[in-house]
Amino acid sequence: MSITTWGNDEPHVNCTWNSYLVTKGENILLIPAAGMRSTEQDIAVNDKVILTLATREVEGFNGYHGTGFRINGTAKFLTEGEYFDEMKAKFPFLRSVLQITVNNLKQLL
Amino acid sequence: MSITTWGNDEPHVNCTWNSYLVTKGENILLIPAAGMRSTEQDIAVNDKVILTLATREVEGFNGYHGTGFRINGTAKFLTEGEYFDEMKAKFPFLRSVLQITVNNLKQLL
Repeated sequence: MSITTWGNDEPHVNCTWNSYLVTKGENILLIPAAGMRSTEQDIAVNDKVILTLATREVEGFNGYHGTGFRINGTAKFLTEGEYFDEMKAKFPFLRSVLQITVNNLKQLL
Repeated sequence: MSITTWGNDEPHVNCTWNSYLVTKGENILLIPAAGMRSTEQDIAVNDKVILTLATREVEGFNGYHGTGFRINGTAKFLTEGEYFDEMKAKFPFLRSVLQITVNNLKQLL
């Protein structure tokens, strides 16, 4: 999945794996962050984020072989708290947790 | 794979499948474009583009289970010519071809 942020000069695009995504409640996504320094620098200036993710393994609209989503949200980095501890236990390599609040989600196909 | 463009207000992120990518020579990528209207509107203002793509099916650095790339390039849309005809034959659904000239490619993992 892609994570696009902007705020310092040009946009920055980072990536992680679909399988690393953890959902919480209706509109919270948690992503383990190992590096993501440029993403963090953008978020410090502008917390808006665009995510995209897709897989061929889930059927899309009208029986299409694959589906994909674009998500608009806001982001913050967590370095402590319940979500951080839970994610750290699951992904020991993380240095922080990227928490996304989903504002808009669109299934693309 | 993700296609990030910017030039009008906020960045726009579009997606396509890795399997749709066609390479030409050392630094040209061709992508079939069915919709991609927002991408085209950005490119008209600023032809810079950031692509990301990844797969679990190819081994990355140090035997890692998966690899991914970030590509910086410039883009233009083709609606005629040799590349267009070749892509149209392969992807009948396209309305135009997004041609990327790769300026910088980084293997992320």
